[in-house]
Amino acid sequence: MNQQITNLMTSAATSSAQIIKNNFRKTDDFKNKSSHIDIVTPTDVLSQQNIRKVLVEGMVSLGYAETDIGFVEEESKVDVLKKYNFIVDPLDGTSNFSSGIPYCCVSIGFAVDQVLVAGVVADPFLDTVYCGVLGEGSFVKKAGEEKRQLLLSNKSMSSWMVSAHYNGLDKVHDQFSCYERIYPSVRGLRNLGSLTLDLCLLADNVFDVVLNKGCYFWDLAAASVILKEAGGQLFDYNGAPLAFDWNDSKKKYLVVGCRPDAVSDVLSFTN
Amino acid sequence: MNQQITNLMTSAATSSAQIIKNNFRKTDDFKNKSSHIDIVTPTDVLSQQNIRKVLVEGMVSLGYAETDIGFVEEESKVDVLKKYNFIVDPLDGTSNFSSGIPYCCVSIGFAVDQVLVAGVVADPFLDTVYCGVLGEGSFVKKAGEEKRQLLLSNKSMSSWMVSAHYNGLDKVHDQFSCYERIYPSVRGLRNLGSLTLDLCLLADNVFDVVLNKGCYFWDLAAASVILKEAGGQLFDYNGAPLAFDWNDSKKKYLVVGCRPDAVSDVLSFTN
Repeated sequence: MNQQITNLMTSAATSSAQIIKNNFRKTDDFKNKSSHIDIVTPTDVLSQQNIRKVLVEGMVSLGYAETDIGFVEEESKVDVLKKYNFIVDPLDGTSNFSSGIPYCCVSIGFAVDQVLVAGVVADPFLDTVYCGVLGEGSFVKKAGEEKRQLLLSNKSMSSWMVSAHYNGLDKVHDQFSCYERIYPSVRGLRNLGSLTLDLCLLADNVFDVVLNKGCYFWDLAAASVILKEAGGQLFDYNGAPLAFDWNDSKKKYLVVGCRPDAVSDVLSFTN
Repeated sequence: MNQQITNLMTSAATSSAQIIKNNFRKTDDFKNKSSHIDIVTPTDVLSQQNIRKVLVEGMVSLGYAETDIGFVEEESKVDVLKKYNFIVDPLDGTSNFSSGIPYCCVSIGFAVDQVLVAGVVADPFLDTVYCGVLGEGSFVKKAGEEKRQLLLSNKSMSSWMVSAHYNGLDKVHDQFSCYERIYPSVRGLRNLGSLTLDLCLLADNVFDVVLNKGCYFWDLAAASVILKEAGGQLFDYNGAPLAFDWNDSKKKYLVVGCRPDAVSDVLSFTN
């Protein structure tokens, strides 16, 4: 993997993180998308424009042809797949952002010939960047601290912290029932409001399980590389490793993130 | 209210916040208290020792008799009520702290003749201090930013963000059922893991409702002043303003925090 490309992704993610930080609680301007729980703000759009500009200009200056560079983005209607594709969530945790909860992130995955090879996630409020490269490991770098490798450790279920998302009106009873079953066996359930950042915290041994029944490729792409390189994995609710469908970028996913050796214990609660 | 005492409380809270920040993710040493979901760490104890030292030395240097100063503290077995009482939670969000989720706080309430007159809450990770004084308003001060007054604004239910806690095994079915009922009507539910900090975010128009069925005087004392001065209120689940029992400092409370004019809407979901 070309280190210059991960540097470029980091530059795009951190500059968009700064846009998010600058606009935090400055405006409550937002639009509903599919419903009142699915919203977009002008900051999502600014962040996405910044990322596209930094990545396209940077890739071209590294010698890549602009015609070989494609984007799969939350705020775009049409995705055109190319040899090199960036999978971008310019602001994961828009509801948090618009409500004033300082927990959200910028997510950029990178794929060559439809194979994910790198992921960068930036947390604007804790000045933290997570970066994973296929075959080269995952790392976290917080401002003022040393870069640190991410490696999942084994914990007993009674000390698990579980990221428990609610997704959409059709899945909500399933989810509440599942969380009620798992609650007595673990240390705690949290719903912090950014799936992508939760997956990074899973890679960093903060969460032990992440459960979500309504997410998209751009929520998962970067974090899936970071998690995999740390020793974790995304699964579907049958326990099979999650596979992305490149031909349907708007496909909704149901995911379990955890250590591979924990998935059967997790699924005993979810099904 | 003596400004020197709120300065002292702020000094105690921010120095303990620094202890928490310094010890974050440095150790996973903790002990179970009543169960695996109720834990204490050496950092809770260090924070509490620091607060008691700063407050006692400071009050004595301001001319108050040490024999007039009492403490109600989470980590103490015995509380002795005096003319001046500090109600202290040295680390609200211990499970977050021990799991590595950077969302917790230090909470110090102050009462004269068993009337709460001031509250200070410090967030270690966002370098933010909330302070409320009876009759003088509530304010938030973030490092590098101007002090800002807290005043609740009115929002429609579809844009509400609800802090939805899970508390203990006996209440869990009630809570999940309630949250499942409220979920379709609001923007989102979050469980961030620190009741006290959630109440400060309520006072700052981030949360619109806070629901909890298992908390204590020290979780609520400081935040109740901050919330009240911002125009909010703590209620019980019958809609009556919450009253603290000074003769039973270990009493468990069930609370709804919100704008007074929203409580009947909230209770239509909870009961």
